[in-house]
Amino acid sequence: MAGNSFGHIFKIHTFGESHGLGLGVIIDGCPAGLKIDSAFIQSELDRRKPGQSKLTTQRKEDEAFVIQSGVFEGVTTGTPISIFIPNQDQKSKDYSHIATKYRPSHADYTYDAKYGRRDYRGGGRSSARETVARVAAGAIAKLLLRSQGVSIHAGVTSVGHISLTSPLHEVDWSKAESNPVRCPDPELAEQMAAHILEVKQKGDTVGGIVSAYIEGCPAGLGEPVFDKLHADLGKAMLSINAVKGFEYGSGFKGSTMYGSMHNDVWASGPIGPTTKTNYSGGIQGGISNGMPIYFNVAFKPVATIMKEQQSIDDSGSDTTVMGKGRHDPCVVPRAVVIVEAMAALVLADHLLLNRLNKL
Amino acid sequence: MAGNSFGHIFKIHTFGESHGLGLGVIIDGCPAGLKIDSAFIQSELDRRKPGQSKLTTQRKEDEAFVIQSGVFEGVTTGTPISIFIPNQDQKSKDYSHIATKYRPSHADYTYDAKYGRRDYRGGGRSSARETVARVAAGAIAKLLLRSQGVSIHAGVTSVGHISLTSPLHEVDWSKAESNPVRCPDPELAEQMAAHILEVKQKGDTVGGIVSAYIEGCPAGLGEPVFDKLHADLGKAMLSINAVKGFEYGSGFKGSTMYGSMHNDVWASGPIGPTTKTNYSGGIQGGISNGMPIYFNVAFKPVATIMKEQQSIDDSGSDTTVMGKGRHDPCVVPRAVVIVEAMAALVLADHLLLNRLNKL
Amino acid sequence: MAGNSFGHIFKIHTFGESHGLGLGVIIDGCPAGLKIDSAFIQSELDRRKPGQSKLTTQRKEDEAFVIQSGVFEGVTTGTPISIFIPNQDQKSKDYSHIATKYRPSHADYTYDAKYGRRDYRGGGRSSARETVARVAAGAIAKLLLRSQGVSIHAGVTSVGHISLTSPLHEVDWSKAESNPVRCPDPELAEQMAAHILEVKQKGDTVGGIVSAYIEGCPAGLGEPVFDKLHADLGKAMLSINAVKGFEYGSGFKGSTMYGSMHNDVWASGPIGPTTKTNYSGGIQGGISNGMPIYFNVAFKPVATIMKEQQSIDDSGSDTTVMGKGRHDPCVVPRAVVIVEAMAALVLADHLLLNRLNKL
Amino acid sequence: MAGNSFGHIFKIHTFGESHGLGLGVIIDGCPAGLKIDSAFIQSELDRRKPGQSKLTTQRKEDEAFVIQSGVFEGVTTGTPISIFIPNQDQKSKDYSHIATKYRPSHADYTYDAKYGRRDYRGGGRSSARETVARVAAGAIAKLLLRSQGVSIHAGVTSVGHISLTSPLHEVDWSKAESNPVRCPDPELAEQMAAHILEVKQKGDTVGGIVSAYIEGCPAGLGEPVFDKLHADLGKAMLSINAVKGFEYGSGFKGSTMYGSMHNDVWASGPIGPTTKTNYSGGIQGGISNGMPIYFNVAFKPVATIMKEQQSIDDSGSDTTVMGKGRHDPCVVPRAVVIVEAMAALVLADHLLLNRLNKL
Repeated sequence: MAGNSFGHIFKIHTFGESHGLGLGVIIDGCPAGLKIDSAFIQSELDRRKPGQSKLTTQRKEDEAFVIQSGVFEGVTTGTPISIFIPNQDQKSKDYSHIATKYRPSHADYTYDAKYGRRDYRGGGRSSARETVARVAAGAIAKLLLRSQGVSIHAGVTSVGHISLTSPLHEVDWSKAESNPVRCPDPELAEQMAAHILEVKQKGDTVGGIVSAYIEGCPAGLGEPVFDKLHADLGKAMLSINAVKGFEYGSGFKGSTMYGSMHNDVWASGPIGPTTKTNYSGGIQGGISNGMPIYFNVAFKPVATIMKEQQSIDDSGSDTTVMGKGRHDPCVVPRAVVIVEAMAALVLADHLLLNRLNKL
Repeated sequence: MAGNSFGHIFKIHTFGESHGLGLGVIIDGCPAGLKIDSAFIQSELDRRKPGQSKLTTQRKEDEAFVIQSGVFEGVTTGTPISIFIPNQDQKSKDYSHIATKYRPSHADYTYDAKYGRRDYRGGGRSSARETVARVAAGAIAKLLLRSQGVSIHAGVTSVGHISLTSPLHEVDWSKAESNPVRCPDPELAEQMAAHILEVKQKGDTVGGIVSAYIEGCPAGLGEPVFDKLHADLGKAMLSINAVKGFEYGSGFKGSTMYGSMHNDVWASGPIGPTTKTNYSGGIQGGISNGMPIYFNVAFKPVATIMKEQQSIDDSGSDTTVMGKGRHDPCVVPRAVVIVEAMAALVLADHLLLNRLNKL
Repeated sequence: MAGNSFGHIFKIHTFGESHGLGLGVIIDGCPAGLKIDSAFIQSELDRRKPGQSKLTTQRKEDEAFVIQSGVFEGVTTGTPISIFIPNQDQKSKDYSHIATKYRPSHADYTYDAKYGRRDYRGGGRSSARETVARVAAGAIAKLLLRSQGVSIHAGVTSVGHISLTSPLHEVDWSKAESNPVRCPDPELAEQMAAHILEVKQKGDTVGGIVSAYIEGCPAGLGEPVFDKLHADLGKAMLSINAVKGFEYGSGFKGSTMYGSMHNDVWASGPIGPTTKTNYSGGIQGGISNGMPIYFNVAFKPVATIMKEQQSIDDSGSDTTVMGKGRHDPCVVPRAVVIVEAMAALVLADHLLLNRLNKL
Repeated sequence: MAGNSFGHIFKIHTFGESHGLGLGVIIDGCPAGLKIDSAFIQSELDRRKPGQSKLTTQRKEDEAFVIQSGVFEGVTTGTPISIFIPNQDQKSKDYSHIATKYRPSHADYTYDAKYGRRDYRGGGRSSARETVARVAAGAIAKLLLRSQGVSIHAGVTSVGHISLTSPLHEVDWSKAESNPVRCPDPELAEQMAAHILEVKQKGDTVGGIVSAYIEGCPAGLGEPVFDKLHADLGKAMLSINAVKGFEYGSGFKGSTMYGSMHNDVWASGPIGPTTKTNYSGGIQGGISNGMPIYFNVAFKPVATIMKEQQSIDDSGSDTTVMGKGRHDPCVVPRAVVIVEAMAALVLADHLLLNRLNKL
């Protein structure tokens, strides 16, 4: 039951460690007949890769990928699609200095506690490099969604205490890719960028929030009572490295509201019922209602900092650790595409699931 | 794949509608040899049942239950445990007035959109009455956890804008059951109670937050990279009716922090490593680290209000709806035991999963 | 993972012991909109029930059943369908004489070895009474298949050494229900009946074979490479009590043939390709090809015999056991409907699965 | 739900086509701490590879493999183990002559019917080359089983009408690898070899039976009521290309026996109960009883023959097909290791599952 599979129908199985041969994913359950756009997959991987700007780690990695199966003459065949992304220079670095140390707020101790051993090179399987496989699979899911008219937007809406204040349905999502922070408000993006660089210069890191906004999703997606659409979205987001919270629609703020204000009043629309407000976030009773779906994902500050920290090693003795090399001072700019990928996987899955509910 | 199953090993399958014969659950995967304490199961059901105080709906329901299988001579046998909770007076009420209407922020329209039909009596399967099966199963999970030294506490920490401000590790959880709100701070509980009654008198409803605090959980629980412990907890909570958000450890506040403050520094403890702070919320890399686990769950205001609201019916025509009968003005006091139950199911499941990781 | 669930989409979860309160099943994944014919479910349960003729056990049981959920106004709603079949007089009998004894070729010892304890009354969960839940669920699956034009026939083709020799596609399946043996050849049925009675008078039991023949199944069902249609049918059959073997199409005889004879030559048919012979049994590469599907299921002789047998008890001491009460001398007449039910479950499941394969 | 995953806990996910880049498998759920013996994996792949003797296809393939993840310093880490086996010369051959033709008793038509398209090169995903991934994963499972004292033997017991007559518990399994047929009786092996060569010279093919015999399996494996040990073994075997039947213990012959003969009488043994006979095949009530487990697997004759056969193409027009190149005249010698691999996967899985049944 080791938890490296995700999805009910459009199912992915991932593998790989940050300093092994590479990362990979099998997509099992993608319908036959989907055209595969390799340039699009590459562009998605590039949005995640390190070294994109001064705001991210300066490690240079070319994210080459190879589709090993499941696609014939450019179209999916209904058999498993395997994608492999080789690691670059995976053997070049020396990790012996952390082989026995437990870095604060990393997974070193917990992997040891669970498995009795761990691949300590760059965090092994617990490294955020693992998410590259999610992005590759998410790109296929996006191609499927695009063919059904569903579009997913995401962007950075908070860095530290700097936050976008406009409601998500008033945001111009097309601008999220116009700046290295991936904030849909370019002016705010500059403030965020300045703050990230300031934090970086101190050898510190800072957290942030990624928000997503999904349009074109038909009513009917979600499988109560446990596989509610927002529950599967929530699990998807919470499974991403460094995520501490998830809220959809009115979210935590909704817990302070009164029913008379929070209720979304129905009205007739051209292609079906619509709601005048959308505190529900496009999901009611765990099932999409055709309105836009939106949610927020909170990321903690990156644990690797360029400062010396107290710690212990695996024998319980006191020691110190200090970040080496090139790490992200703030994870949210690169996390945008990961959030989108996980959302795409959930929606593609539920689109297929929803073929099963009526005779 | 209809989503009425939850868990990997300690697995539950639920069924039933609010105005059918009853609600039920099969627990498949409970180990043999667990003593079943029926009085405890009853007491858990009683904590959820309506009519407990002026703060909850005044419907009176006796939550009788029957264990139909899987227990022999008071002890589990390893075969499926089936528990059935009959509905009381399920046929007495007339629901024809909402048979074709879409109540605001309910699941009426989405069930119609998904299934092409619905049992409209009291919300059918989408009713929060469904959670009674979760509480029954959760009681069995708690018995399992108790035998392993794990204890789960939960309580109300917000009602509308009235919030507990002390950090969760300073809370006296033993007091949560001392008042009808189930707030661990009895003084604050009185303010909350007053506010709920005020809201009720206006025919309105209000949201709130339930927080949970888990002690005694061993290090090693959680199955990266998708079935991380907090991801499974998050999905469990988000699957509960009316939940809009989930955060663990530092949560959304963590997204505003710097790494140098947020990192939990390791120290040697008497039975293993401990951390000096616990922003991680007892989980690192998706695996428990032996420290207390804590999280918050945001509930929206109940959608049924005693005021007339605009709406439409299933032919798209304008209509109005108005709540009838006795409904909760605020769901969180009764939700405490549901949050505990879902947490218990996740932890029991992961305790068993963790038997599988080493040779 | 305790194995009380079956199916991928049209999924069943069963529970109950032979001398507990009853047997039950949840069907999760039945599409909304299926009309439920309760008289048909009852007639299927009656085909399985004991006491039908001199050939079966003389225990009289009325198989009452109750649908507890998932059906509203006579039609499925897409929510879980729960069916409960109460046991009659479940407390009347004394089983203390076998509480510590291991009956030969029963599951007494293996349940003890696995779970450390067992409900010894009438075999508990290992009793063939468990199959009543399968028949109830299978009846729902048959209603679904009927709506899609698929029909399942089964009958007894061997009792001990008395075997039907005609190929299955020449059999008049409509006659299988014309006699208590459920052999489609009424003349042979009389020989079989006489043999069963003879065996019964000696206090002995005898094995047999049930064959199934399925018509109207569309091409395309089956999910390679593991969930091939015949692999899922095989597992379904092998999971029935007392089954020792499964073969489909040419089966074991096919292993003696040459390719030049065994290959099924294609020809054009009115609604698609057909084959001139059908050694493939309607399945090629694990996927149905539109031709009739057929298979054989071998049942061992019932283990409970009316003769004294040597054995041991749970302390390892020598003892003897002897069958008491009323047991079947030959299981195959009553197994026909169980084979049909399991086949129906597999086919309903794969009909739904096959909605997912094309964009 | 596309069926490319197998197992409950020790779970495999496979991918790849016969003329794509290669075949692969992820093993998710292998416990940490298992030493990986690469030479053993290679030797298992070599037992399956073509070109071993005159009895098999003369295609020469070097089965190189690479472990891409999950193993660190020669030991499993508990993370997914990915193994990739590249195809040799996958682009060299022209398959356009069968691109639109439906070969008799192949999966050409059924893949088209299911997916609307297919990779026609060498059968694509339906090719028996797919089984190389099973053998690689099975080798890991064997290493796990070996560490627990379980050993799996298999051999050819029938080729066409030439059959081994001695009971399986009297066979000297150590001799199965002494001859190219892999029959444990070297004398009979020569007759079988001669028959295969004779069939080959005629351009024809012939079927056969592989039998397996498992020793050292502890009592308690198997998860009733659906995931019985023999049901999972049966599904595993039936999922292998060309398999038409499965029987365990007394099998189909058992259906002709009387209970008084078939019952396995218990006796006290040095380490637990044993049975004087073993018609049960080591499994009772779906759970292993500690006695040897044995079963037979029937394989049909290979569908590709060197003779012209009538057929149709995908437009329904008449055509002819004729086997080209080098194909096996009889599949059973190479299938022995595949049967062993699938048995190993089932047993490793159930060994782990059985950790979950007691408190």
